[in-house]
Amino acid sequence: MVIIGGGFGGLSAARALSGADMDVVVLDRKNHHVFQPLLYQVAAAALSPGDIASPIRWILRRQRNAQVWLADVTRIDVDRRIVHLADGPHEVAYDALIVAAGVTHSYFGHDDWQPHAPGLKTLEDALAIRARVLTAFELAERESNAAAQRRLLTFVVVGSGPTGVELAGSLAEISRHALVNDFRSIDPEAARIILVEGGPEVLQTYPAPLPTFARRALEKLGVAVWTGSAVTGIDAGHVHVGSEFIEAGTILWAAGVLASSLGASPGVPLDRAGRVIVNQDLTIPGYPEVFVIGDLATFRTEDGQTLPGVAQVAMQQGVHAARGAVAMFAGQSRAPFRYRFYGNMATIGRHSAIGDLGWVKLKGYPAWLAWLAWLFIHLMQLIGFRNRFSVLLQWAVSYLTYQRAVRLITDPPKGSS
Amino acid sequence: MVIIGGGFGGLSAARALSGADMDVVVLDRKNHHVFQPLLYQVAAAALSPGDIASPIRWILRRQRNAQVWLADVTRIDVDRRIVHLADGPHEVAYDALIVAAGVTHSYFGHDDWQPHAPGLKTLEDALAIRARVLTAFELAERESNAAAQRRLLTFVVVGSGPTGVELAGSLAEISRHALVNDFRSIDPEAARIILVEGGPEVLQTYPAPLPTFARRALEKLGVAVWTGSAVTGIDAGHVHVGSEFIEAGTILWAAGVLASSLGASPGVPLDRAGRVIVNQDLTIPGYPEVFVIGDLATFRTEDGQTLPGVAQVAMQQGVHAARGAVAMFAGQSRAPFRYRFYGNMATIGRHSAIGDLGWVKLKGYPAWLAWLAWLFIHLMQLIGFRNRFSVLLQWAVSYLTYQRAVRLITDPPKGSS
Repeated sequence: MVIIGGGFGGLSAARALSGADMDVVVLDRKNHHVFQPLLYQVAAAALSPGDIASPIRWILRRQRNAQVWLADVTRIDVDRRIVHLADGPHEVAYDALIVAAGVTHSYFGHDDWQPHAPGLKTLEDALAIRARVLTAFELAERESNAAAQRRLLTFVVVGSGPTGVELAGSLAEISRHALVNDFRSIDPEAARIILVEGGPEVLQTYPAPLPTFARRALEKLGVAVWTGSAVTGIDAGHVHVGSEFIEAGTILWAAGVLASSLGASPGVPLDRAGRVIVNQDLTIPGYPEVFVIGDLATFRTEDGQTLPGVAQVAMQQGVHAARGAVAMFAGQSRAPFRYRFYGNMATIGRHSAIGDLGWVKLKGYPAWLAWLAWLFIHLMQLIGFRNRFSVLLQWAVSYLTYQRAVRLITDPPKGSS
Repeated sequence: MVIIGGGFGGLSAARALSGADMDVVVLDRKNHHVFQPLLYQVAAAALSPGDIASPIRWILRRQRNAQVWLADVTRIDVDRRIVHLADGPHEVAYDALIVAAGVTHSYFGHDDWQPHAPGLKTLEDALAIRARVLTAFELAERESNAAAQRRLLTFVVVGSGPTGVELAGSLAEISRHALVNDFRSIDPEAARIILVEGGPEVLQTYPAPLPTFARRALEKLGVAVWTGSAVTGIDAGHVHVGSEFIEAGTILWAAGVLASSLGASPGVPLDRAGRVIVNQDLTIPGYPEVFVIGDLATFRTEDGQTLPGVAQVAMQQGVHAARGAVAMFAGQSRAPFRYRFYGNMATIGRHSAIGDLGWVKLKGYPAWLAWLAWLFIHLMQLIGFRNRFSVLLQWAVSYLTYQRAVRLITDPPKGSS
């Protein structure tokens, strides 16, 4: 069994196979699993990379039937049942394959926007965004020209899904709380944070009245929310919104996703975002030993809906694909995948959130507490017992001491800004 | 008053001026002060960058007469009393200047060795070394050729001063303890760690019998100590020692230092390593308003000795230079600098050390306890009261949970290896 990707989907599949009588090889380009829901907090310099990421090898260290390889998969040959790697050994043969390679950013055909408006998917992305944001404040402190200073202290976040909302909320809190005593020439509170959204409301996938609440919560934090504002151009330091433009030292992209190019490799039908359209048992047409799960897959439920690209879907699909593979080797029939909806949540700043649990809608502090509980459950499921306490302690310390030392610029910001 | 450099010297000078009636501007290329004595622990993936570094601006946030600028100083014009910066505003005028720009690596004229054998001075260096070391284990896990695997698991540290000894000891402990359950194809304990030293003994600046003790402690950890072995060549994956050579996947440089090029800027006499030869009051000849301190300065004591490049010297000189500047503006005479030797210490792995306190020599566990106490005192002196507890707690958690999650590869290893 080969699993491509050590994210929520791949890791759940690997763990579901811990009792199975098969060898499991997990391939990932990175040596670590990232706890994506907190990635924006690394970007916002509230948590360290080590607080939200663990080596995949370490997570699976007790699972004796699992191997982990740091490897860049270039192509899948579904007919010869071989995965091609970028460097030696160049081929890995499989009897069953779970592809959980995820997604990257989509600039909707405007790849030239990318250097000016980085997105947030990896730890490196988070550190690069952190460096850009902190460097903007640093340069503003040295800047004597008022217009240039204002430009440096203008932050634009494009896209108001959970990531965009979380980034904008964090930026507002950094400038209004964390940095407030650290500068002499500038007032970090003067920073403008603008959240630009093409649609009519933020967090549109949530049921009313949650989006409206989220919008107001953002505005209370000091974020200017521009809905119904389609971005028409981005270049160095400018965001064009129709005929208007914003001069902004920092532009962050949270608007679109594009499936990993590995999705195209088996030659099966894809949806518009490049995601693989999977069968009801999560396999691809014609290859019952190849499963595609998580953000890379498009799964259509019985009532015709497609599932969102969230951790819960990926984790449930990981378990289902693992069981499907076990059933296949045992010659048994496989059940169709059924998604159990436990809820969706998005945080707005550090003490507010919205949550749709299906049977109840939460907002504000109760939603934030529910989010904490959800975080705790995810953590427990994924990283095992041994270090729960120490991880929680580190999180608590990092979270409570917002003023502290993670505000490090360790990489020069890339591209222009 | 302008201070170049936010290391131990510059920061001590800035803090010593907190009550003074003058404006203080601290210039540094990085936004953070690094607690250098623990830098090797970041390289060894035992601590996170955020555990040992704090934004300079945060450290000085309460000192209202201090400004911090993220700025790259390119040149000092001592006649016009101007510091030139790489980017705008391009000039900063000063009435008094403290230069504490430190040192970088010296490859003794073999700059072509640098890409193959990175050194350890900055957080970026530490993260790059960490990535190389962890990547070597990752590649070895995938490698089926026994000779290639052995090469990948061979680590050479060149130079056996404190940094070299600390790196070698940490590498031994990583491979023998931290990684021991994580791999399937390789046995991390099979890793060879070789410490190469041209001189007759490790940690030669320490009095007998401490070097001999340190050597035995390293050997007990599993480090092969090659003393009397001058390195004659380094290229991709090879270290030449005379006519022999070692095939090594990872080569680390801890052998020499070279003063910051800013030392040459005032046009005053330098020593062989490019350090500025300073007067007894730490100023440079002909410019009583320009102080050079710390690793960048060569100070000759009354009995003809030069002071070592350690944090204690830099910190004492920082305070002395600050007082000298205050005396100068008050028209008072300045005292010559006198170094008070409180002791030198070097750690060997995580629970042993050697310490020379002048009046007593310590080795083993007592020395390690003394080192902990020293660490604590430094920490107290530098980063102020507010977050002492949280920093100590984070350190304790990180230190006690050696198995944990900081083993992240966040940067591709640069150069060949």
